[in-house]
Amino acid sequence: MMDILVVGSVALDTVTTPFGKAKEVLGGSATHFSAAASFFAKVKLVGVVGKDFAEEHLAFLQSRAIDLGGLRQVSGRTFRWKGEYGYDLNEAKTLETQLNVFAAFDPTLPDGYQGSGIVFLANIDPDLQQKVLSQVRTPRLVAADTMNYWIAGKHEALLTVLKKVQVVIINDAEARQLAREPNLVKAARQILSWGPRCLIIKRGEYGALMFSDGGWFAAPAYPLEAVFDPTGAGDSFAGGLLGYLAATGDFSETNFRRAIIMGSVMASFNVEDFSLNRLKTLTRQEIEARYREFQRLVHFDALS
Amino acid sequence: MMDILVVGSVALDTVTTPFGKAKEVLGGSATHFSAAASFFAKVKLVGVVGKDFAEEHLAFLQSRAIDLGGLRQVSGRTFRWKGEYGYDLNEAKTLETQLNVFAAFDPTLPDGYQGSGIVFLANIDPDLQQKVLSQVRTPRLVAADTMNYWIAGKHEALLTVLKKVQVVIINDAEARQLAREPNLVKAARQILSWGPRCLIIKRGEYGALMFSDGGWFAAPAYPLEAVFDPTGAGDSFAGGLLGYLAATGDFSETNFRRAIIMGSVMASFNVEDFSLNRLKTLTRQEIEARYREFQRLVHFDALS
Repeated sequence: MMDILVVGSVALDTVTTPFGKAKEVLGGSATHFSAAASFFAKVKLVGVVGKDFAEEHLAFLQSRAIDLGGLRQVSGRTFRWKGEYGYDLNEAKTLETQLNVFAAFDPTLPDGYQGSGIVFLANIDPDLQQKVLSQVRTPRLVAADTMNYWIAGKHEALLTVLKKVQVVIINDAEARQLAREPNLVKAARQILSWGPRCLIIKRGEYGALMFSDGGWFAAPAYPLEAVFDPTGAGDSFAGGLLGYLAATGDFSETNFRRAIIMGSVMASFNVEDFSLNRLKTLTRQEIEARYREFQRLVHFDALS
Repeated sequence: MMDILVVGSVALDTVTTPFGKAKEVLGGSATHFSAAASFFAKVKLVGVVGKDFAEEHLAFLQSRAIDLGGLRQVSGRTFRWKGEYGYDLNEAKTLETQLNVFAAFDPTLPDGYQGSGIVFLANIDPDLQQKVLSQVRTPRLVAADTMNYWIAGKHEALLTVLKKVQVVIINDAEARQLAREPNLVKAARQILSWGPRCLIIKRGEYGALMFSDGGWFAAPAYPLEAVFDPTGAGDSFAGGLLGYLAATGDFSETNFRRAIIMGSVMASFNVEDFSLNRLKTLTRQEIEARYREFQRLVHFDALS
């Protein structure tokens, strides 16, 4: 069992979907990631919140046994994001972003964090990703996410980070933009040529694809009758994936496939309610049952 | 081994993709379907072409042992479609449609066609689908495709057809529009409530989903490094699917899953070149090899 260090945003989200509205609820990439990963492994969260960050949110994260030694609470307001989704839940429309205390975020790892076995660099400024990574001694596995904003605006810094990353977890539009190549297979080859041994493409309701030296793997998303709020699905996916890898300590191609399904399982639960609410009642039994449902979902026999 | 009867368009397509242009090449839903299905079963094609339809196209279809007794050649010009694709190859932009001889298409089955075991009603006017179906005596399996134009303009006629159909093969936007329900799982339940035992959703580069009483099945698309022309992918998919069912005569849930993968295999070859060109050199060995690649693509192990 390895520890996982995650650096990313801890936010208050205001989200409108066709199914309702949630105002200033717990969100952020590091939050969704940590909560999902906490079902499998010990997580150390590096981030920043303001004085307005409610005690109940801290209590929830602590109830998931997440180490908050790296979560600084400083004067000012917590990072806020406001977005909405139409019936096509695959894409969020950002209405407002308030960086607030995140604008001056300068992550310094507390003692005990430098030896983390797995590091997840959530979607933040590549310079900050690099700064965190440089403080970890000899991680066994480093994974990173990013977004169009950094791909366009900090391409060089991002490539510097990717050279030190084994697993890239991004969506298909980001992969195409990053590689400047519309064909996904060619884009994957390009990205892998920069250093990562594994590229995992998130495709929302269409599932995920893994490209690596060991081959290609396609995982579906679980067809859900009630998708309430897709916010954080990608980070829950990464959390389930890296959490499972941390728990098993097995980085083989075979186990990466299991881990991607576990990521898909956690993402499928995450979207069943607003914020992280579904994870508050989620059990290990439900997780394992849905994993088995994924097995049934994709199974087909050899030609007879 | 059952025969398959297909009714649909036989066309001359002019297609522009980011990878080139093809002018007045062989196309049409019945054509793509028949060519794909012909690798597995005997196909009877019902359609119409004009006097301008080249002898070489007839020769190609005959070389695939497709029965053209139901393909009438009448005075006038063949149906023409002109379209283009951007880098997002999932969606065609129709530039021009010339119905020509298709405008007066009034399908009457020749002798020997009434006893077909499997019927595929490709995407044409639901009144014509109904007219063809009423001439087949006791088909063992009827499958149908449709499109937004008929869903919006001939909803009643379409529902009348669907009551007599066991397998509906449409894309996700069409399923949502047909059921008037944005959630795909709920849309599937709605469509199945009208009579079909099985709904198969085509999702282009994202694969296919099957909803039936027996459960849900998710199939990926094969990640291709060279997609030249997606025209006809959906009909090749249906052709591989129903061709495999006809060849095996097994309509179990287990065999439907194999058939959907076989449809995905045929669609993956279809898009590797313009028109039906890839199918001209395709071999049984290549088909079976790609089926095995699909097995590797989706495989993951149980939790250890």
